[in-house]
Amino acid sequence: MQDTFDLIILGGGPGGYLAGERAGHAGLKTLVIEKRALGGVCLNEGCVPSKALLHSAKIYDYAKGGGEKYGVTATGAQLDQQKVIARKNKVVKTLVSGVAAQLKKNHVTVEIGFGEILGKTAAGFEVAVNGKTCTGKKLLIATGSEPVLPPIPGLREAYASGFGLTNREVLELESIPENFVIIGGGVIGLEMASYFNSAGSRVTVIEMLDHIAGNTDREIASILQKNYEKKGVKFLLSCKVTGIGTGAVEYEQAGEKRSIRADKVLFSIGRRPVTAGFGLEKLAPEMDRGAVKTDEYGRTNIAGLYAAGDVNGVLMLAHTAYRESEVIVNNIIRPVTGTGKKDIMRYHAIPSVIYTNPEVACVGETQESAAKKGYDARTVTASMMYSGRYVAENEGGDGICKLVIDKKNDRLIGVHMIGNYASEIIYGAALMIESEMRTDDIKELVFPHPTVSEIVREALFM
Amino acid sequence: MQDTFDLIILGGGPGGYLAGERAGHAGLKTLVIEKRALGGVCLNEGCVPSKALLHSAKIYDYAKGGGEKYGVTATGAQLDQQKVIARKNKVVKTLVSGVAAQLKKNHVTVEIGFGEILGKTAAGFEVAVNGKTCTGKKLLIATGSEPVLPPIPGLREAYASGFGLTNREVLELESIPENFVIIGGGVIGLEMASYFNSAGSRVTVIEMLDHIAGNTDREIASILQKNYEKKGVKFLLSCKVTGIGTGAVEYEQAGEKRSIRADKVLFSIGRRPVTAGFGLEKLAPEMDRGAVKTDEYGRTNIAGLYAAGDVNGVLMLAHTAYRESEVIVNNIIRPVTGTGKKDIMRYHAIPSVIYTNPEVACVGETQESAAKKGYDARTVTASMMYSGRYVAENEGGDGICKLVIDKKNDRLIGVHMIGNYASEIIYGAALMIESEMRTDDIKELVFPHPTVSEIVREALFM
Repeated sequence: MQDTFDLIILGGGPGGYLAGERAGHAGLKTLVIEKRALGGVCLNEGCVPSKALLHSAKIYDYAKGGGEKYGVTATGAQLDQQKVIARKNKVVKTLVSGVAAQLKKNHVTVEIGFGEILGKTAAGFEVAVNGKTCTGKKLLIATGSEPVLPPIPGLREAYASGFGLTNREVLELESIPENFVIIGGGVIGLEMASYFNSAGSRVTVIEMLDHIAGNTDREIASILQKNYEKKGVKFLLSCKVTGIGTGAVEYEQAGEKRSIRADKVLFSIGRRPVTAGFGLEKLAPEMDRGAVKTDEYGRTNIAGLYAAGDVNGVLMLAHTAYRESEVIVNNIIRPVTGTGKKDIMRYHAIPSVIYTNPEVACVGETQESAAKKGYDARTVTASMMYSGRYVAENEGGDGICKLVIDKKNDRLIGVHMIGNYASEIIYGAALMIESEMRTDDIKELVFPHPTVSEIVREALFM
Repeated sequence: MQDTFDLIILGGGPGGYLAGERAGHAGLKTLVIEKRALGGVCLNEGCVPSKALLHSAKIYDYAKGGGEKYGVTATGAQLDQQKVIARKNKVVKTLVSGVAAQLKKNHVTVEIGFGEILGKTAAGFEVAVNGKTCTGKKLLIATGSEPVLPPIPGLREAYASGFGLTNREVLELESIPENFVIIGGGVIGLEMASYFNSAGSRVTVIEMLDHIAGNTDREIASILQKNYEKKGVKFLLSCKVTGIGTGAVEYEQAGEKRSIRADKVLFSIGRRPVTAGFGLEKLAPEMDRGAVKTDEYGRTNIAGLYAAGDVNGVLMLAHTAYRESEVIVNNIIRPVTGTGKKDIMRYHAIPSVIYTNPEVACVGETQESAAKKGYDARTVTASMMYSGRYVAENEGGDGICKLVIDKKNDRLIGVHMIGNYASEIIYGAALMIESEMRTDDIKELVFPHPTVSEIVREALFM
């Protein structure tokens, strides 16, 4: 029957499309259902488009005066926000087409439309989409996440009127707000603070905790904050937003009610798994704090039902979704096609990046998390000024690289960096942790000189 | 006796100063003799200062029109060459002070002066410097290399008059020559072509071979050449320079004599080990094609005499010198202090970088070198356009990542990249090769998204 598939995937974001590619490549008859646009939030309104904006901001920063320290001057520097957005749209379009092409190449059926789970029969999982019913022997839930919009008075009205934005709308703004208030100082909030600060907004970040950047190493979070304070970003920490008014955000700080003027407000308070509205309750898999509960093979408690990506609530990162999907597909195809392999999901060496300027990148344990897990760990910190390239390219830079080492066996268990190129360096540190390298193994590696990457090794000699 | 040392090091470049730091740290009484400036060619007139210039050039490229594609415009962009040089000097000064401080911290004696080997006695190696004679139980030759200045008619006169330059003088130029001719299309030639092209010179590169970039993967060298031809650099390949005239360089191409106008000429023809003029003939170690011959422990054929860095002629790269020095010191200190360890030099996973824009970075075997060594290898090539970040930051980019894989065991044996951030990514590829990772091991690693680094893994799925 034409509408029976080996695997149906609900959601065409990183977890979904990658599962589709890999399953299709292995010869499984595969269907990907995406309600909006292939690539999901990451590609269309998240990780990737924000990088296009941030790259323009970096160029603009140099043009409008930042280049002077390096002997480069210019007058009349301008950032054309509409061009930036148009280019961002072009980048997204290119990449979305790339995803579509990969799926096609791997003989994956794609339905753009809303998929709804009807139930499970002896034949498999029944899913309705675009007026037909498809059956999948296996079903992968990859529906991702959505922004949390808490019941703050005025918030929903602000969102409806366009005064309040989420990650989606903020990447479509065609003009730069004069006063830009960001609620939530996590990754999305900080990246957007970085962009709009460069673009000319007066930016205020309101954060409920007493520090920005979530679970990031505290010293690094503090260096990042100082860098942005120098650039004019205002941080209101330990603050609770109490209402969204007309052209203003109300908040409480140390028991006092205050208000701040805003021309636009970004809600970057957090994200939550998308688990409702598409019939998941018909299958009723076990949940864990609002997320679909999975094991290290991506399996739910229902035979044949898998979940990958933000919807499982483990680590809401596109690259986590990729790997989870691969593990799922490898284990599905092994008995079917004889390809694939025993594969298992590991979460201890997954890097994360904040694409501010300077960049922040981390992987593995912090000193704090190591202590909580019972490691007897030591920490070494190296100033990035030990890197010749860093000095050559970062006038007045204050970057650091911090290593967390298990004293018991001298193994590297965490790497935390602030300073440019950290984003592109961190994968190698993840590799070291994943390979269980000891400090002596790392010392035997040869790093190219002069690079910022050398600092990872250099820190071991501190 | 005050002037007796456990280790005397001739040369304060990367090989020399690092050996000094490590030996001093281990408690050896150590002397570093440097005739010019700590840090050697690399820090003072090579790798590091060139990076300061190239960073300014990148900023200038964006300011003078390159930013337009990204929505950023400016008028009247100017590169102030004198400021660039002044800043470069400041960077060098900072880093040289850093080296001096590290040596001091590790209780290393430093003599700035010309060291001359007097001979070997029962007590050790006698070396004269600054009017005194010092004795070293061990002696490390780290005298580096110098530019090759072949006997081309007019070349020495051109160098004497300041019309001809080496890597040293080219980094001191206080104005930008209108017509800049570069003889030799290797790493130094290409990096300087990149800088002076950005800075506004009409640049011509004359190369004897039929390709630029030496042993770099040919496809990548060709992409690099096309990028620079688009920017206006002229490449004269398979050309022999026959004379340096007044304001001109004469050359032969396909049997025809020609001449090209030049306001300055850079001689970047190659470098050769510095083995003469400092009494090495008194010890007369075995040589190999003009270099001091060493084994995988950095030992010469004379007991107690070592050589590291460019002077051994193996791989003229600062980071090779670093590692060679560490191997030497580890093996010296092991029986003496009980610290250190058995250590051995391996050359198969040493990365190299060309800091052009786009950057080139390579490690391990090329398809060609693998075939010569008898590998049954396969090659996979991925366009960097598969990387979302690359697309977001490189309008019209044509970067690639090429992997060379040993078919026998599916091990990665070579990685070759052109595209920005390659310089900071390549150390991880070196790590993979050094750790003898198979393609399946690499597929299990999680790379942060969106980064250009992902392309290394992505290529495995092509």
